[in-house]
Amino acid sequence: MRERRLIERIRKLAKPHAASSLVVQGIGDDCAILQLPPGRQLLVTTDLCVENVHFRRKWHPAPSVGHRCLARGLSDIAAMGGTPVACFLSLGIPTMGSPTFPQPWVDGFLRGLLDLAQSFHVQLAGGDISSAAEVVADIVVTGHAPASKAILRSGARPGDRIYVTGSLGGSAAVLHQLLAAKRVRATRSSTHFYPQPRIQVGQWLQKRGLATAMIDLSDGLSVDLSHICEESRVSASISPKKIPVAEGSRLELALHGGEDYELLFTAPKSARLPAHIAGVAVTEIGTIGNPQNYSSAIQILGENGSIQSLPQQGWEHFKRR
Amino acid sequence: MRERRLIERIRKLAKPHAASSLVVQGIGDDCAILQLPPGRQLLVTTDLCVENVHFRRKWHPAPSVGHRCLARGLSDIAAMGGTPVACFLSLGIPTMGSPTFPQPWVDGFLRGLLDLAQSFHVQLAGGDISSAAEVVADIVVTGHAPASKAILRSGARPGDRIYVTGSLGGSAAVLHQLLAAKRVRATRSSTHFYPQPRIQVGQWLQKRGLATAMIDLSDGLSVDLSHICEESRVSASISPKKIPVAEGSRLELALHGGEDYELLFTAPKSARLPAHIAGVAVTEIGTIGNPQNYSSAIQILGENGSIQSLPQQGWEHFKRR
Repeated sequence: MRERRLIERIRKLAKPHAASSLVVQGIGDDCAILQLPPGRQLLVTTDLCVENVHFRRKWHPAPSVGHRCLARGLSDIAAMGGTPVACFLSLGIPTMGSPTFPQPWVDGFLRGLLDLAQSFHVQLAGGDISSAAEVVADIVVTGHAPASKAILRSGARPGDRIYVTGSLGGSAAVLHQLLAAKRVRATRSSTHFYPQPRIQVGQWLQKRGLATAMIDLSDGLSVDLSHICEESRVSASISPKKIPVAEGSRLELALHGGEDYELLFTAPKSARLPAHIAGVAVTEIGTIGNPQNYSSAIQILGENGSIQSLPQQGWEHFKRR
Repeated sequence: MRERRLIERIRKLAKPHAASSLVVQGIGDDCAILQLPPGRQLLVTTDLCVENVHFRRKWHPAPSVGHRCLARGLSDIAAMGGTPVACFLSLGIPTMGSPTFPQPWVDGFLRGLLDLAQSFHVQLAGGDISSAAEVVADIVVTGHAPASKAILRSGARPGDRIYVTGSLGGSAAVLHQLLAAKRVRATRSSTHFYPQPRIQVGQWLQKRGLATAMIDLSDGLSVDLSHICEESRVSASISPKKIPVAEGSRLELALHGGEDYELLFTAPKSARLPAHIAGVAVTEIGTIGNPQNYSSAIQILGENGSIQSLPQQGWEHFKRR
């Protein structure tokens, strides 16, 4: 059975990697069994990555695809201020194990995924395998946060300040280069190919109770900030000149480009936030306002005092070609 | 954004359905948040369903596809003796929301999934959406079992008796009819179109500590019994004439056909098992033996005292056509 061989291969590759003491039973039974620390609630997030929608095999080396798929889930755990524990991989691949779909690609994909998992002490604890018309990888990440203390999207209050970590628009700038058929080297330091989930920043904010609301920047600032506004029933105004635009990118991509996997959060005006948390820059970019018409909940403050609505142009991944 | 519209649609359809008191935060934040009852461990299972591998849209009505996808995960929870709590759906659909892929199919799929979820008080607590070349649905089910009391595959001991619930081969018999281009009505009572996960049977066995090992029959008796033999490091012998063959099916399909989603379990010789548990027939079919060569771990006992090895013909789903 091909499926069986592939599962054995995954178990073998996963074996030298992280084992979490909270995983009672990993790959190899009908379910995985996890133990939560006392006083903790479970966090669960799922992210579906589809070939030619979320990645392209000709653009993204296999380890980058594995890394990016898992980074999406870890970033969701970060956005709750949580601690990741275990991940699960459901992998569909074309004509499974046949010469037309080489094993080295699957090995590279798993290596990228497992290396990132290891760096956060996350264990690959289960999953499923199927053939599929193209590569699909659904990744579940489970984690925990202190009971009733996870940071939701719904806690922002008028007067709160709005912050982002790191710099924005870097991933989208690389995507534009790829779409323009430019060659881009997939270096380990590239936020497009190897984004770094901000787990430590999220935990730092959670422990100190400083953030009133938080989300990760997966769809782009304009869309993700609108989620906070919707769930918190508030509005927001941001100053474009304060937005930390990534090197080689531009303001428009910082506002609307996705997949930076930085954190966007709000904190009371009185909160004193350091310039860096866990080595990552933190920048104040705006203020939460009163609720209003949510279709134009986000305003851009111009330098001359002008006010414009920020459209939610959103990030619909790259279109099939 | 089409993705957004579809997510709103899913939230709307899910709203009147089951809400679990253990789900603290459902659809609508970066992660779902779940609370486990004290003294319980978390169970997690993922099942990837791919169009033309696990179902065909021309054969399986949309509600049957949704039901079957979730039934796989619930059956894994049943096989641990666990209680399901919440499910998560990652759904990839062709040319999302376009006229070529009608909304009624998605609505029907969700109705089938949500109706089954509701019948077990399981809440749809999150998921993800993407376009994809064909329909893919990865379903995660989370549940719980008393700490260290979930029923594993690894506890079978020589001398234990082997039992199955219900009858076997019924789903494969329908599949053979479909493959032969026969018309089959997708009635609610069909185990192929609407399999019933044996949650109550699993819980009954777990509470009484009667089962030493358990697995659900998803791949077929010959393959799934070999998993128990491998994980428990034992062998098994079964009597074909004792196997409860489903009406309209035959012994070969009962031995090797998959997707019956009945439970296969072992219990000490001294255990007294009723003929029915939670209304489902329970049949003794064989005995666990000493470890030996695992490549022929399962023996078939002939009526004349003959002994044959049972090949693991397995269930590789139906091939693409």
